[in-house]
Amino acid sequence: MVSWNNLDTLNSFKELSKLKKVSVKEVMTGENGAKRAKEYSAAMACGMDFNYAAKAVDDDVLDALASLADEAQLAEKFAELYNGAVINTGEKRLVLHQLTRGQLGNDVVADGVNKREFYVGQQKKIAEFAAKVHDGEIANGKGEKFTTVVQIGIGGSDLGPRAIYLALENWAKKTGNFKLEARFISNVDPDDAAAVLNGIDVAHSLFVLVSKSGTTLETLTNESFVKDALRKAGLDASKHMIAVTSETSPLAKSSDYLAAFFMDDYIGGRFSSCSAVGGAILSLAFGADVFARFLEGAAEEDKLAADKDIRKNPAMLDALIGVYERNILGYDCTAVLPYSQALSRFPAHLQQADMESNGKSVNRFGEPVDYKTGPVIFGEPGTNGQHSFYQLLHQGTDIIPLQFIGFKNSQIGTDVDIQGSTSQQKLCANVAAQIVAFACGKDDENNNRKFEGNRPSSIIIGKQLTPEAMGALLSHFENKIMFQGFLWNVNSFDQEGVQLGKVLAKKVLAHETDGALKVYSDLLDI
Amino acid sequence: MVSWNNLDTLNSFKELSKLKKVSVKEVMTGENGAKRAKEYSAAMACGMDFNYAAKAVDDDVLDALASLADEAQLAEKFAELYNGAVINTGEKRLVLHQLTRGQLGNDVVADGVNKREFYVGQQKKIAEFAAKVHDGEIANGKGEKFTTVVQIGIGGSDLGPRAIYLALENWAKKTGNFKLEARFISNVDPDDAAAVLNGIDVAHSLFVLVSKSGTTLETLTNESFVKDALRKAGLDASKHMIAVTSETSPLAKSSDYLAAFFMDDYIGGRFSSCSAVGGAILSLAFGADVFARFLEGAAEEDKLAADKDIRKNPAMLDALIGVYERNILGYDCTAVLPYSQALSRFPAHLQQADMESNGKSVNRFGEPVDYKTGPVIFGEPGTNGQHSFYQLLHQGTDIIPLQFIGFKNSQIGTDVDIQGSTSQQKLCANVAAQIVAFACGKDDENNNRKFEGNRPSSIIIGKQLTPEAMGALLSHFENKIMFQGFLWNVNSFDQEGVQLGKVLAKKVLAHETDGALKVYSDLLDI
Repeated sequence: MVSWNNLDTLNSFKELSKLKKVSVKEVMTGENGAKRAKEYSAAMACGMDFNYAAKAVDDDVLDALASLADEAQLAEKFAELYNGAVINTGEKRLVLHQLTRGQLGNDVVADGVNKREFYVGQQKKIAEFAAKVHDGEIANGKGEKFTTVVQIGIGGSDLGPRAIYLALENWAKKTGNFKLEARFISNVDPDDAAAVLNGIDVAHSLFVLVSKSGTTLETLTNESFVKDALRKAGLDASKHMIAVTSETSPLAKSSDYLAAFFMDDYIGGRFSSCSAVGGAILSLAFGADVFARFLEGAAEEDKLAADKDIRKNPAMLDALIGVYERNILGYDCTAVLPYSQALSRFPAHLQQADMESNGKSVNRFGEPVDYKTGPVIFGEPGTNGQHSFYQLLHQGTDIIPLQFIGFKNSQIGTDVDIQGSTSQQKLCANVAAQIVAFACGKDDENNNRKFEGNRPSSIIIGKQLTPEAMGALLSHFENKIMFQGFLWNVNSFDQEGVQLGKVLAKKVLAHETDGALKVYSDLLDI
Repeated sequence: MVSWNNLDTLNSFKELSKLKKVSVKEVMTGENGAKRAKEYSAAMACGMDFNYAAKAVDDDVLDALASLADEAQLAEKFAELYNGAVINTGEKRLVLHQLTRGQLGNDVVADGVNKREFYVGQQKKIAEFAAKVHDGEIANGKGEKFTTVVQIGIGGSDLGPRAIYLALENWAKKTGNFKLEARFISNVDPDDAAAVLNGIDVAHSLFVLVSKSGTTLETLTNESFVKDALRKAGLDASKHMIAVTSETSPLAKSSDYLAAFFMDDYIGGRFSSCSAVGGAILSLAFGADVFARFLEGAAEEDKLAADKDIRKNPAMLDALIGVYERNILGYDCTAVLPYSQALSRFPAHLQQADMESNGKSVNRFGEPVDYKTGPVIFGEPGTNGQHSFYQLLHQGTDIIPLQFIGFKNSQIGTDVDIQGSTSQQKLCANVAAQIVAFACGKDDENNNRKFEGNRPSSIIIGKQLTPEAMGALLSHFENKIMFQGFLWNVNSFDQEGVQLGKVLAKKVLAHETDGALKVYSDLLDI
């Protein structure tokens, strides 16, 4: 049996805090730096590598982190999770998102159902449906093929699927795997839905309504918005809409939809990209084979996350280093910096996945913790970020750990040679340069041009951003977040912090307010 | 004369730190909260208001902040700036972006030119050019009207213009002011340019090359990329491209462009949205009248920023409260949360404007400072953010000050009534609810459902996101950043921190590397 203890009660954590701090600048300079850059690397799936040479660790710190992983029983806790324990204790739920893409342990049976079979079954149903849409067997009222698919969902039903769609859109167009254009409606701001609807051909659009509970107010509101538009265009809304929901939701058996595909309570919204939530829109946009390849990449990476050896387990190692940075070195934010325009919204997805999971102040037992938990996550693609907020990262008064991602090859392959190098080479040269600039800095007589260095970073290097690579990336960060939740002893799978705002917003709409809330309601003309 | 002193040498700052801290929860509860919500508000331009009732301030703190503003000579320093002093001492430059939209003080003559006349002249030249494009007098090689305008620029030549375009796109479409679709190419990642080019009709596209120096590597590379595509399409590139640059740049008099419009060294990239950098693309997309209205809103807001009374100067007050939060309360990040999908990229623009300006560790004289300067800025539109990272904002272990923005009316006006309220009402109800939820929290027997409250926020409330309102918003934040730079005694107008990465990237491309840099270059196949 595993035991759940607060981070600051673990002996290995106390030992870790006593170790000599590593100067990134010192160890990354000269030939020692070259040695580290070669050796401090853990293999990921799809030929990718997690390189942590520019982190503030050495063999002593790594050994201590390995002890911490052991004492915190990270591998055992992950095994409990994938074998079907009730890890989400707050909501008394299993946590099964890894099971949507593979099976690491025993059969997991819940509600009388083998859950792996259930998820694979849904994936198959979606594949069949998508194939019929692609070949025109399922078509609009006039028998014409659909050209556009629009996801209606918010939070986890939006950010992950959107980030992955954008990540693979150009790859799919280049490789002949592009089937339908995808759009996304998420915000309750009526201008979001109106603008999307104004920009598409609704008569040839298929809408995917995504809400696990079937009660998310934003999503149901936007569904009505879309149905209104369909009706006004003289179209039968039920011929233009499918639902992704849980089997027990009011949407599950409604005749309002062409079809319904299911997830369940064991898939948290922010971890739902590999379930039907991502599966429907991605299979429709790119074909079910591409979605299957994405799942395979994630499954491969999950296998690595089950390894007890932290040096062979990139997600666990990344998690441990992050906790070391947060709780011993005292760094409060992490920047995610993909050198890939295709990953433009991946930082926004990780912002949710990470901050909603580990932005907690109480442990699994509801007791306040005495240490910092989840950091602020933000980021934009490089090289754009270099011309934006990198000034602060290099010379600001706070140290922000950095998580770079880079690929040797572009997706589209069109390139131009200027001043002796291609754009892709320039892109890669910049990320290589940044790692060393942040680590080693540069002295200068003019303090304004001086770089202290000692800014830690890691980089994930891949060959190309393919469906498999995207799956592996997603798995890496999901598992990193999970391991950090284990270390902080928080429940990473609930989100009680979002409830109060909902309750108060309902009061405002019911005009049941007083005090400041009434004044703000009046100021906003509600 | 003004004198430039470090924040921690000011008596009023020391006094401020001794004051009793305000519990946001306490003061925002009950009738006192209602009173504050009504009274703690400063009028902005265009009928907007900056409401700071939910900040950790009371009259004593505000009085102390007023003393700090006096002692730091904020109003006097701003006057120096707009009257043409060399405020950017590092680069020995004037700082004149406010002059692109109005004139607050004396005539500013530099390089023998009245600069207000120069900026107005460029605005006029752009207006004439845009009108000719719109009526087809300037057309493509076949004499056909342009339908699309594509900005090629990075950092300040991208983020601000892009954010403003997105902010006004739907408004313009609704009000009959929409002229050309705009797209943006920024990243040196070749997939960025390739994807944009694949998505447009290049034969009917006009490209705006934006680089002050005319030497920005990303931008010149993307220019070549675009010219290649134009040539391959059998088009004359010089008939499809204009330049926005400084008069001394190599682009200024080139026959490669249909026209060139000018900014100068006194306009920093991140403050260039009101110059030709934003002017060309926004005038082409929406017409010069709309751009002029945007400038008027900014000019109106600038006038308020010149007021010595902090209670009547929203930008100065916002800046002072931010410094109080950063340097006395110890909060390290600020989230910008617009409840408006149209402002989806405004936080990314402010991230640059703020972090690149004030992410500094040395003062104006190059001496290291002993206090924190610019915070991390991040944000996404509400209500999307509520379903993403708000969990951490409500229940995480760090307190993050929040900057809300909300509008009473949508831009497009299409809406739907569900459960007794419109989407716009739901949107506004949510932001009202969040202010109070963050401030007051909620007790609960179950710690997991407990909200400590005491999370400070402000809100800017406007009637609708019009061009004038967008200008006022931009001015507010630009001036806030400027005042914070004055308080921290840093040079907010240079960015030496971006240089080292550029130098090292050049070395990588020239294969002049050793140590870790060589290893990373090899790992990335450069």
